[in-house]
Amino acid sequence: MININNNIKLIGFDADDTLWINEPHYRETEQKFSLIMSKYIPAEQVSSLLFKTESKNMELLGYGAKAFTISLIETAIQISNNKITSAEIIKILNLGKKLIDMPIKILDGVENVLSFFQNKYELIMITKGDLLDQERKLAKSGLKKYFHHIEIVSNKNKNTYSNIINKLGFLPQEFMMIGNSLKSDVLPVIEIGSKGVYIPYHTTWEHEIINEDNITEKKYPKLNSITDLFNIFIV
Amino acid sequence: MININNNIKLIGFDADDTLWINEPHYRETEQKFSLIMSKYIPAEQVSSLLFKTESKNMELLGYGAKAFTISLIETAIQISNNKITSAEIIKILNLGKKLIDMPIKILDGVENVLSFFQNKYELIMITKGDLLDQERKLAKSGLKKYFHHIEIVSNKNKNTYSNIINKLGFLPQEFMMIGNSLKSDVLPVIEIGSKGVYIPYHTTWEHEIINEDNITEKKYPKLNSITDLFNIFIV
Repeated sequence: MININNNIKLIGFDADDTLWINEPHYRETEQKFSLIMSKYIPAEQVSSLLFKTESKNMELLGYGAKAFTISLIETAIQISNNKITSAEIIKILNLGKKLIDMPIKILDGVENVLSFFQNKYELIMITKGDLLDQERKLAKSGLKKYFHHIEIVSNKNKNTYSNIINKLGFLPQEFMMIGNSLKSDVLPVIEIGSKGVYIPYHTTWEHEIINEDNITEKKYPKLNSITDLFNIFIV
Repeated sequence: MININNNIKLIGFDADDTLWINEPHYRETEQKFSLIMSKYIPAEQVSSLLFKTESKNMELLGYGAKAFTISLIETAIQISNNKITSAEIIKILNLGKKLIDMPIKILDGVENVLSFFQNKYELIMITKGDLLDQERKLAKSGLKKYFHHIEIVSNKNKNTYSNIINKLGFLPQEFMMIGNSLKSDVLPVIEIGSKGVYIPYHTTWEHEIINEDNITEKKYPKLNSITDLFNIFIV
């Protein structure tokens, strides 16, 4: 049993695929997209070409379902060699709209954890993405009541975390962040002297993947499920 | 001379078309879009049809250039009766991308006003729209240094303002908001007991327009230019 000690006063939770299911909705959309595109190129080649467009558009469009929708349309036109029809583009655009309005399914154990911790620590949700997307998902989730603060940010790096902790009047060593992305939730907080807890989810977007084998000194607990948090705290 | 008295401690500034030029970039994009569409319908009919799509998409997509780009593509397919070509859709998509990366031109007098007020009041920028769009415009503007806080929100209503004022530890009567939209910047703050200052800009998006003649009791100063703020304060 790893012991996270009692200095912690502020706990941050990532949202997508930490509190609720997100990435599988994107993958499902991608599969439907590949099917539409299979008239033009083999379906199994679509994902890597889409990822190429997404990566190229990342700086300009950022994260979220609207950026994804624009990248879908752009990829469709490119890989069909301008042969795709308007009717197919509308289908793709509607896939994007459906994704924006995705249903929210809370992950197992999340409400138990949040309701237990909310009276003992200051809880903050820190999520990356499109402002309206994330607000809508939070509203649908019904989890807002557990959080003292909500931060929707365009990127999660050292500075993002330092600024938030500082703004709320805490010290880095009083902060712990919990999430499913080593790159966005765990490694940057360790760099600033906070604690990071890694709870991998079975589906991770390629853009967020870091090969854990390359991290020689693992300074973070890795949990199977959010309810394992009960085991690493003296509660 | 209208006198805004000394209770004010926190001053909020809208950004788009209050601090820098925004709406004309959208109108220019719309004109180029109308030109592409003029093959299919008379250019002068395009704007109202685009606005219809934007209004229908507002709840789902919200504000900002990515939402606008998606609405452009959707409108193009609809009004061309599915006849628009892939090559034309790529042109439209690229109009949207160019809009996202718009150059930032600060409005006259803005830096004078901000640099003068920043030592006397707590200044906050409160802007509605897409998170990444607004962050990018702020970074390009070079105006970040004048503000104690930045708030990028998905909507500006009574609650938005109450929450921000409260979070920062001020009272409603200590807050004054300055902006070019009666609907978003002025009327909601007056409702909560704060002050609103209206500085109309020559171009206003249809969605933000309120007929001023319908407001019987005008409880806000209306200025010609941001530098007129020097006249309504005892400075």
